[in-house]
Formats: sequence, structure tokens, C-alpha cells
Amino acid sequence: MLNKIALEEAWNIPEGGSLGGFDSAKFSSKGVIGDDLGANLLDVHGTRLQQMDENGVEFMVLSLVSAGPQGISDPTAAENLARIANSKLCGEVMKNPKRFAGLASVSMHNPDQASSELKRCFNELEGFIGVILNDFQSSGPDGNTMLFYDDASYDPFWATAEQLNCPVYIHPRSSTPEIAEKMWKGRSHLNFSALGYANRVNMHLLGIITAGVLDRFPRLKLVVGHMGEHIPYDLYRIDHKLNRARFPNMRMRKDRLVRDYFGSQVFVTTSGHFSTPALLCAMQEIGVEACMFSIDYPFESIPNACVWFDEHVRDSINGRDLVRIGRGNALRVYERLREGPHRIKELGTAECGVGGLKAEEQEVEFGLYNKSWSRREVRR
Amino acid sequence: MLNKIALEEAWNIPEGGSLGGFDSAKFSSKGVIGDDLGANLLDVHGTRLQQMDENGVEFMVLSLVSAGPQGISDPTAAENLARIANSKLCGEVMKNPKRFAGLASVSMHNPDQASSELKRCFNELEGFIGVILNDFQSSGPDGNTMLFYDDASYDPFWATAEQLNCPVYIHPRSSTPEIAEKMWKGRSHLNFSALGYANRVNMHLLGIITAGVLDRFPRLKLVVGHMGEHIPYDLYRIDHKLNRARFPNMRMRKDRLVRDYFGSQVFVTTSGHFSTPALLCAMQEIGVEACMFSIDYPFESIPNACVWFDEHVRDSINGRDLVRIGRGNALRVYERLREGPHRIKELGTAECGVGGLKAEEQEVEFGLYNKSWSRREVRR
Amino acid sequence: MLNKIALEEAWNIPEGGSLGGFDSAKFSSKGVIGDDLGANLLDVHGTRLQQMDENGVEFMVLSLVSAGPQGISDPTAAENLARIANSKLCGEVMKNPKRFAGLASVSMHNPDQASSELKRCFNELEGFIGVILNDFQSSGPDGNTMLFYDDASYDPFWATAEQLNCPVYIHPRSSTPEIAEKMWKGRSHLNFSALGYANRVNMHLLGIITAGVLDRFPRLKLVVGHMGEHIPYDLYRIDHKLNRARFPNMRMRKDRLVRDYFGSQVFVTTSGHFSTPALLCAMQEIGVEACMFSIDYPFESIPNACVWFDEHVRDSINGRDLVRIGRGNALRVYERLREGPHRIKELGTAECGVGGLKAEEQEVEFGLYNKSWSRREVRR
Amino acid sequence: MLNKIALEEAWNIPEGGSLGGFDSAKFSSKGVIGDDLGANLLDVHGTRLQQMDENGVEFMVLSLVSAGPQGISDPTAAENLARIANSKLCGEVMKNPKRFAGLASVSMHNPDQASSELKRCFNELEGFIGVILNDFQSSGPDGNTMLFYDDASYDPFWATAEQLNCPVYIHPRSSTPEIAEKMWKGRSHLNFSALGYANRVNMHLLGIITAGVLDRFPRLKLVVGHMGEHIPYDLYRIDHKLNRARFPNMRMRKDRLVRDYFGSQVFVTTSGHFSTPALLCAMQEIGVEACMFSIDYPFESIPNACVWFDEHVRDSINGRDLVRIGRGNALRVYERLREGPHRIKELGTAECGVGGLKAEEQEVEFGLYNKSWSRREVRR
Repeated sequence: MLNKIALEEAWNIPEGGSLGGFDSAKFSSKGVIGDDLGANLLDVHGTRLQQMDENGVEFMVLSLVSAGPQGISDPTAAENLARIANSKLCGEVMKNPKRFAGLASVSMHNPDQASSELKRCFNELEGFIGVILNDFQSSGPDGNTMLFYDDASYDPFWATAEQLNCPVYIHPRSSTPEIAEKMWKGRSHLNFSALGYANRVNMHLLGIITAGVLDRFPRLKLVVGHMGEHIPYDLYRIDHKLNRARFPNMRMRKDRLVRDYFGSQVFVTTSGHFSTPALLCAMQEIGVEACMFSIDYPFESIPNACVWFDEHVRDSINGRDLVRIGRGNALRVYERLREGPHRIKELGTAECGVGGLKAEEQEVEFGLYNKSWSRREVRR
Repeated sequence: MLNKIALEEAWNIPEGGSLGGFDSAKFSSKGVIGDDLGANLLDVHGTRLQQMDENGVEFMVLSLVSAGPQGISDPTAAENLARIANSKLCGEVMKNPKRFAGLASVSMHNPDQASSELKRCFNELEGFIGVILNDFQSSGPDGNTMLFYDDASYDPFWATAEQLNCPVYIHPRSSTPEIAEKMWKGRSHLNFSALGYANRVNMHLLGIITAGVLDRFPRLKLVVGHMGEHIPYDLYRIDHKLNRARFPNMRMRKDRLVRDYFGSQVFVTTSGHFSTPALLCAMQEIGVEACMFSIDYPFESIPNACVWFDEHVRDSINGRDLVRIGRGNALRVYERLREGPHRIKELGTAECGVGGLKAEEQEVEFGLYNKSWSRREVRR
Repeated sequence: MLNKIALEEAWNIPEGGSLGGFDSAKFSSKGVIGDDLGANLLDVHGTRLQQMDENGVEFMVLSLVSAGPQGISDPTAAENLARIANSKLCGEVMKNPKRFAGLASVSMHNPDQASSELKRCFNELEGFIGVILNDFQSSGPDGNTMLFYDDASYDPFWATAEQLNCPVYIHPRSSTPEIAEKMWKGRSHLNFSALGYANRVNMHLLGIITAGVLDRFPRLKLVVGHMGEHIPYDLYRIDHKLNRARFPNMRMRKDRLVRDYFGSQVFVTTSGHFSTPALLCAMQEIGVEACMFSIDYPFESIPNACVWFDEHVRDSINGRDLVRIGRGNALRVYERLREGPHRIKELGTAECGVGGLKAEEQEVEFGLYNKSWSRREVRR
Repeated sequence: MLNKIALEEAWNIPEGGSLGGFDSAKFSSKGVIGDDLGANLLDVHGTRLQQMDENGVEFMVLSLVSAGPQGISDPTAAENLARIANSKLCGEVMKNPKRFAGLASVSMHNPDQASSELKRCFNELEGFIGVILNDFQSSGPDGNTMLFYDDASYDPFWATAEQLNCPVYIHPRSSTPEIAEKMWKGRSHLNFSALGYANRVNMHLLGIITAGVLDRFPRLKLVVGHMGEHIPYDLYRIDHKLNRARFPNMRMRKDRLVRDYFGSQVFVTTSGHFSTPALLCAMQEIGVEACMFSIDYPFESIPNACVWFDEHVRDSINGRDLVRIGRGNALRVYERLREGPHRIKELGTAECGVGGLKAEEQEVEFGLYNKSWSRREVRR
């Protein structure tokens, strides 16, 4: 599919490490994650853009690599990283705003300060269409205190995000050292993207929803990656077990189920989970409007995500839904994409190269997974 | 789901038999089809409306029972039945236009005459939102000639339907006596709703599409029942095998596939095919926008269709898509439902009783297929 | 997937045309169907075997190209074609019985003669594992009479097939000239593989089932291609509408539904319908045991079918089911594959190259649709 | 479906509370969980059996309610509870071994002691077919130390389970007080069955698998409930992200993926997650052989689970797979069910009341979700 939009795409600043964030210089070895993680994080207009062009990605929404400010337990340092990263991200995306936009980073030590920084990004800088929170905020002298945003004290932040029409991407992050030691020692290979990321961030997301944040801020939108961090598959059990009689103090609206928020206030992306059965399950449970394409570059390969979506998903769902997931829904969730320096437009299936017999193919049949009739083609 | 709209619902006039149409008096025995087919066809405001009320059906679109004018090989008699039935249908639906509308019947012996009758229904009568064609038009002295509307001579009729913004429902009918004798003798139990209906009408529908009718009349919409008369399941093979090199004279646009018309110009209903796996397959292949709820009353039971949709389908898909299939799509396809004497409105999930913990149920859990905790409830 | 078995694969004899069958010489032009239909039908051990090797097809079951004897209205000529073709097929498959077996062809003018020829193939010749019937038998002076095998007079044939443990493949064929003229004129592009094949053969298959043939011969097995010729998608409606009160003379067991025969006596193949949504629907409705891989070579491309199955289907279902559909079920349905000159064995997922991290890939991740991290590979 | 087998069904002993286990007396209030949780846990042959009879549950496998010995940080007390509970469970199930069997409880403080107790249950007592482990073993003076069985020191226990052909059910439990305080405070409604149970036990299960336990003990079988504790939905991401280059010390076979163990060594049950979309997703990803019916009584209602399975799942999958999930797979995983005092037999679809037109229904149609043609039936 042509003209895809990708939403959970990481980027870094060279001074990330020195500011307490992710140190790109430490991850330069090839072959373990991607082909050159550190360098790929720093790059925007070179390899990244070239691969976007080669893979039908019209637009990428960039965000500072996790954990960003959330990983810094000192408030001033966290705020400093956010501010510097946001200013630099503005500079990068404004070099090519037809292809890039940014999600703002904020320190979540102080909801008011987070609100101020978010307002700065939306009102004073250009190129921002949302904000990213990398799970809980590290706090405390040893970094083992976790601040969660389902606490009522964060309502001013949510109010700001709603007022700015700024969707909030809830992204995973690493556990605190203490939890890593207590729960994941001996199985640390599971503590990251294979399992731990989802196990942590799904609690935080459900915490925010069941705390009634989306009820108090009914125009607020939340986005999570990785096909919903296990939640779509488990929605029956989640709604079934949040027994109001057993949990009378749960603040979510009594006449709402968790599932009711998906597609209107909660959305998932495909980042890093290129599974057709999982996508089909999500489409059944939360509906196509709640699903959006993303890659998770450079932790995932752009061509890999796009071959999956352009060829395998295309083979399994109709063209209208493909274009919604690949592009259309992003424009409805991130409304700023249609405005300002980006001016991204809604496109139909034909404009996205979906459906239709191609002019040059009129003499051959539809449905050729292998163009040659007689020779098994291999990817090269 | 509350407030459903049903689209393929049969009705008859007492004089149907004497006019060459369906003779309700001949089908009064209980137990074979429905509980009293003949009487149920004649009824609108009694049992039918009561069952609609009891089963969350806000609105029914009525049409003269098949084969109607299509079964009458004498043009004058066919036109006469259409005209009388349309006038009477107008009378019936206008007694309660908030609950009923009609599909016009037309003789298809002469495209111009069909156009005139359709214009009369849309411009001079009230309560019509579409037209129904019961497959081919019987013709010839012995009724064994079949007129198909993919012939270019029918373009004036399609032009009228498009100009009136009148969706055309293509409904099945019985085979000619000759074909019944040649192909179905000894297996006539298969010649009707179990198989023959679909086998005939899917050819006619694909004939119309591949003849380019939808290209020449790009605002024209076609509707078929019974979950698409086998077509959604077979779309790969259909598109794959309509090899343009082999069939260079096929008039459909060279840059289009049959699948491209679904959801914009071709729509299917669930009438008489209450299968969850089939619906899920259709949603994958043609998308939720192309699917609409219908019953096929009184050949099918209203409660049966509604228990399936309200309970079983609800358990398998998300609420937004349920409401689209049950109501929303009908309003987009049959735009006249929003206007004139009907003024049917778009409704959200909550208004349709979908999603949300009900007030009276706040103390118990979501997800109870059986309300009692300990006693197996049976339907009574 | 390695070691696949393909079941509906056509072959022809050079004298086919002169004997009243398919004339390979007439279909030599490239580009319309396949790359050289006539030559590909004649070939066994050259291009065909090479493409099998290149695409993980261990075994092909060959059958004389449709309509074979069924297309010949003269009994003697039909019997002659069958006998000659069977003897030649024996010769071809016995050149390489580890890679090929055959389905016998029979004239169906006379059930006793058909039984005799089938016995000859199974008892006197080698390499036969089943029989193929190309829909109805053409009969009568003008070839417009259709003989259907649901007639009780065919019970001796079914008894023979059961006694020989010989599965019967019901394959489509063209319509009679008369039906082609009456029903398909003006839309003949639909009369073949795009629609007409399935519309005819699904009636015949359901005729045989509902006539009680499978009840009278409970060890008899039937196979149909093209993902079941529309039937799996419509099983609810078929079973729902075969109302025993309305059709009291239907001979099928009163305590059986049509769906009950699938997986034990009726099986479908994927031949020519490489649709993932259709396969998923079939797996829901009739179960994985009822589904078997096939190509429909040379009317379909071997690499195309295999790229679909090896890559796209593999991405959508688990490995155990993939191997069942690709190989295991064929060994349970066609038991002779395990015996005689073939001695094909059951294989597990690892032996079929399904599942597992490959040795040479241990350093990279699972789930790469595109092997290169950074370059979009295209098939060449 | 008749003759279902249910595998994750809780039971308690009156002295459970005083022995450090679950105190049934504390959970007698109606309406919060079930209708009388404490009493229902103590009951076997009264209400429980009656509801089994009323809901087509032929057989229940009982296990001591969680956390059992795993919740007791004092080794002697934990061992004592296990021993007493096992002896009593033997007594209960042997009162009616045609309807009940048990899973042994073991303290996991000491693998050798656990092995001894398991051997006692399998060799000296009757009625045991497997063992249950309620996630990690609480340990340490404050109960905040967690013992996980992926540690190599537990190999003697796994060896015993394998040697006894004793499937190991990995069941969830509550978090330690410390983790509850650190992670779940303020959102404790999520810490139990709605989310926390799965988030903990999926880590433990994947820890065991990726530690190579199933490789070292290739006949060992593991079972988890709640539709796989999120894992089937996420298998792509799990296998994709367990990059062997990044995690070279992961002990699982280098030529295996996590998904390769499902259906042969790892199985899931439907306990407490009565979601059709989730079951369909699991069937795609891990296959029908890996899925088994269970209820989670008395935390879940027997009629609710059974109405879902008998009516809703039946409507969505074929009969052969329904019977496998409802019964057949349990006999293949828990082989002792076929032996000793139980002698449970494999049954076909007809014997389980699946498929077929019922004798008393021969006059009406198949596919009636609502038996009455005209009256909407409600469950009473």
C-alpha cells in the first residue's frame, strides 16, 4: 500500500546519553537490533527517508527514543531532556514537514510543568501532533519509585492534552532496577519487548482508563502500540472481571465497559507485532477504526513491516480497511496531520495502489503472489 | 441490538395469485415454511409489527414477494401486477412510515416502461426508497425465455435508477420450467433457497457488474441478500479467473476488479443466512460497510434472525461494526430513509443498546451469556 | 512448506483431441491460460517435475484433463478414451511412483462399465489411488442430456468405489451447448472457472449427498476442489433450508446434516482458489481435516499456489494445521498413497520445514517477511 | 455439547484457612464472586454435581483453590497443607471417580519434597491425573521472596512430573505484598483476574519454556488457563523478539520457537475467558489441539461457561473441533483420565450431541437460535 503513515517511530539526539537519555553511541553494533541502532536513531533525512520512499511510507511521526524523560528520576534533568529534545525535533521535522511530524516528550514529575512544555510544543513550536509518555515516570533517589498517571494529581496534564486536541501515545519502557531484580532476574530476556514491556504498559493504560480519565476528559485520545499490548485479546475477561460490586471504588463510568473506549478514545498500532491473526482478532474485538499501522523503527525493519502490511495483510482483508489502518485512521486520530505545515490528505484505495487491475498488468490475472508463471521467485 | 433496520422483507397482496403473482392462499399450512406463510405475507401492521417491536427491529423495508412481475411472461400482466402492488404498498407503508418503507416492483419486459413505473413510485407515490428485481424476467410464449439486465438494452433502466438515487435489490427467483426439468429434476429440494436461488442470482449479479453497468452508472447501487449469494467467499477466484486477456470483450473497466465495487456500489445483506463464520468471512473480504442486516421474513423467523444478530454476532464483533451492519449502513445505502416521511436517524452504540454496563446490571459482571449464576436458563 | 502433496492436477494425452477429449494442440498460445497450456498438460517428467522440485511439492496426483469421458456423449467413445488414458497414465506415473500417482477416468454412461474400468485400474494397473468424475456425463444425440450420479441407478458404481476404498474427486466441467446458450450467452466469461464451474458442480455434489449416497456407502469419500465450490460458506443456509417437512422425500439420513459429512466423507481442496479468508472460513465451518492443498496445474501456476501456501497461509495458521492441509490429510483420505509403489509417509512440522528457527538463521529474528533488514526485496 | 470435561475447577477444604490456605469462611457473601464462593468451594457432590448434570459437564478435574501451598512462605506449613489437601481430595474424587479426578497440590520450596508428594499422589493415592502449581512459591521471612521454577534447581521436579506422565497446570496467584504495594497500589482492581494474574503467570510460563525445561523433559506437558494468559495473541512478537543474538544465554533449543511447543507440550484452557474472538485467534495461532474447555468454577458460573461453549462457540466452529476442545484433547493431554478408576472414553460428535438433526426436531429446520418461530424467547 502506498502513502502509509507510521506513528511509533523512534529518533534520538546525539547528546541523549549525556542528558540522561538513550545513548545512541552505545548501540552501534550491527546485527543484534537492526543493522545499526544507534546511527539509525540519529538519522532522519538519510537512510530513514530513503527506506520510507522505497516502502510506500509517505509520513513518519517521530518521537524521542524510550525511556526519554520518563527514565530520569531527577525532575530538572528530565525536564531539560524533554525541552532540548522537543526543540531539536521541531528543527528536524520542519526540514521536511510533508514527510515528518513529531510527538512531544515531557517530564511527568510535575503535571503542570508537563502541561507547560506540551503547550510550548503545540503553540510555540511547529510540527508537533501529539505527545508520547514512556510508561511510568522514574522517581525517587534510587529511581525505584514509579509515578503512574492514573493518579488524580495528573488531571491537569490530561486537561491540557484534551484542550490541545493532543493524542497521548503510551509507550513501554524498562522496569525499575528493583523490579528487574525481584521479578525478572534469570529471565531478563523476557523483560523487554518479548513480554515485560506489554505487561507493564497494559497495566498503566488500563489504570488510566479505569480511573475515569477518559470520562473526565471525553475528547482525550490515547494510543498504544504493539497491537494493543495484549488488551484486545483479553477484553472479554477484562470487562467481565471488573465487577463493579467487587470494586465499587473504581472511578470509571458505571455505564461503560473498557471496550467502549476503543475506536473513539483508545487506539492501537501494529508497531512491532506483525501478526495477521492478532490483527484479525483486534479487528473483531475493537474494530478497524481502532487500528493503525506503525513500524517501531529502528527497533523493527521498515521493509519487514511494510512487506507484511503491503502483501500479507492485503491478502487477508479488504482494501477499504487496509487503507484505513495504513493511513485514514491516523488522520482522524491525529487531526493536526491535516493542518499546519503537514496538510496530509485523505486518500482512496486507488490512490494508495490498492485494488484495481494495474494498467501494465491488464493482460495477466489478478491474484498472483508470484508474478512469474513458472519460476519461483525469491526476494532479493 | 435495538433499532435495527431490515431490508429484504416480503409482503403480498390478496389478489397476488389472481394477478399472476404469488398466491398467498395456497401457502397457509403451518410448519413447512414459517408458521403461516400466506397470512404472514399479507400482514403488515399486526403480527409483523408486533414481532418487530419484540425483537428490536425499528424499521422494515417491504417488497412484493418473489417472483412478482419477473415471473409473468406476459408484459401487460407483469406491468399490471407491478402497478397495483406498488400503489397498495404505498398505502400500507404510509399508514406507518416511521416503521415501514417499500421497494418498488417493476416489470422488466421493457426498460422504458420499468423506468416510468419507477419514476411514478419515486415521484408520485410516497414511501419508496429502492426497487427490487427478482432475478431474470420470464418471457416468451412458454415462459422459458430469460431476460437478463446485463444486456445493453437495459441501460435506460439503470440510468433511471441512478438518476433517482434508487438502490436496486437483486433478489432470487425460481428457475424456468425448462431449466428445472433439465437440471434440477430429481434434486428439486436444491433448486430453491438451499442452492438454486444463489446459483442463479450470483450469475446475474456478476453479469451486471462485468457488463460494466456500474461503470456507466457510477452512482448506481446494487444490493443482494443471503450474505452475497456465495460471491464474497469466492472473490479471489472470480477476480483471478476473469482474465482480461482471455475475455477481452468483457465490458467492465479494465482497471477494476469485481471486489472494488463492494461497499461503494454493491452491498450484501444477511437475509436467510444467519451464519457467523460466513459473516466474518464477508467482513474480511468485502468489509463491514458492504454488509447489512436483513431477515427475509416471513420465509425466515424474525426472532431467529434477531437472536442470532443480537446475541451471537454481538459476541463475535465489536459494537461499532454491529451497529453499522444492523442500522448505519442501511442509512448510507438507502438515503431516502433519512428523508420524506421516514426521517430515520443515525444512532450510536449506546442508543442501540450495544456496549456499556446497563444500569440495572451494574452490580453484576459483564459477559453473562446466562444471567443466572447457577441455573441453566432455557429459552421460553 | 516442504513435501506438499497436490491432488487436482491435470494431464493430457497427445491423442486427447482425436479421441473426443481435450485437444492440447489447440491451446498452445502463451499468456492466456498459463504459459503454454497444451504442452504443460502433456508434460509430466520435465517442466512439471522441475517446478515441483523448486516449490516443495513432493507428490502430484494426476488426472486426465476435464471433461474427459464425461464430455463424450457416445458411450463407446467415452469408454475408449477412459481406457486409453488410464493405461497411459499408469505408464507415466510408474516411471516415477515416488512423485506421481493417478486418478482413474471412467465413462459414466453405464455404472457397471464404470465399475469394471475402475476395478481394472485398481486391480490390474498400478499407481491409481482414486477416481475423477468431471461433473455430469454428456449424453444423447446432441450431447444436451446430462446424466447425474445421484440417480439410484449409479449405486453399483458407488458400491465399487467404496469397496475399492477409492475416493471420488468431483471435478467441474463445461455446460452443455443448450444450457450455455440459454443461460450464459452474453456472459460466457462467467461460465467457466470464474463461476459456472462451481455453480454446476456444487449442485451435483449436494445432489449426491442429499440423495443418501454417503449413507448407503458409509466408507465412500468424495473430494471437491476450489475450496469447496461455494459450499463451506453456505453450509448454514444449506442445512437450514433443507427442511425435512418441506422435502420429505429427500433420501439423506433424517438425523444428519450436510455439514456432518465434511471431514469424514467429504473433503475440499484449495485448487485454484488461493484465498486466505476463504480458507479460514472453511476451517471454521468444516474443520482443518476437511481441507487439502491442491494447485490445479497447469490451469494455475505451481509457484503461485505454493508462494500463497508456503508464505501467506503459513503466516495465518499454526504449523500443525499447515502440515495437515499441505500433506497429512491427503494421506488419510487417499490411503493408497501410503502403499504400493508410492509409500508416502506421514511427516511432522520440522520435516516439512515448518516452525523452528533455522540453523542458518539463528543469529537473526523470527518473523522476517523480508530477509534484509534495510532493503525492500522484490521477487525475481 | 454433552459430555464436556472441565479442567481448572477449584475446591477447598474446610480447614484451608487455618492451615494457611484459602479461608472459605471469609468468602460467604453472595453476589460479589459467584453466589456463595466459600460454600461452593467446599462442595463437590451437591450443587456442583447437579450443575454439571444440568450443563452437560461429564467430568471435572478438581484442584485446591489458589494460592494453596504456593502462598505459604513457611516450607513445613506449605508441605502440610499440600499433604492434607491431597489426601482429602483423593477421598472426595474416589466417592465418584466417573465424574471427578484431582490435580495434586505441592509445596515448591523444595523440589525433592515436591517430587515425593507428587509420587505419593500418583502411586499411593487414587484419582490424581496431574498437578497444579499456583505460579511462584512465596518464600522468605516476609513472604516477599518469589521462587520461580525456571531455575535449574527445579529440574528434579520436572523430571518426576515427566516420569509420572503428569501434566503440570500453571495457575495464577496473587502478587507478594511488596509488589502489590509498589506496582498495583491505587489500581488493585486490576491486580487480580482482570489483568495481574495473567501478567504474572505468563512471565513464569515463558520463563519455564525459554529456560529449556521442555527440551530437557520432552514428554513433559504444561497447561495454562484463561485462553493462554495473553500468549497466543502475542506469539509473533514473542518469537520475533527472543533474538538469539541478543539473548545468547537463553537455554531453549536454538532450533525451536516458543510456538513450536503448543499442542504437543503446552496447552491452554478457556477457563474464565469466554470470548469467541479470542478462541478463534488461539485456534489460528496455536491450533485446535492446544485448546481445551474449562470453567474456573466457582469463580465463574458453570451455566455461563456452558451456554457460551454449547451455543455460541458451537455456532462459530465445526463440530469436530468443538468436541476436541470440549473433551477429546483433555483425554490426550491427561492420559490417566482413560485409566484407573475414571476410564473416560473418546466420544464422537453424535455422542456429544453435536451435529445431526435431532429426532424430535426432524420436522423443523436446522439453525434455529430461537426455537419458536414467532415469539422471542428469553432465558429463564
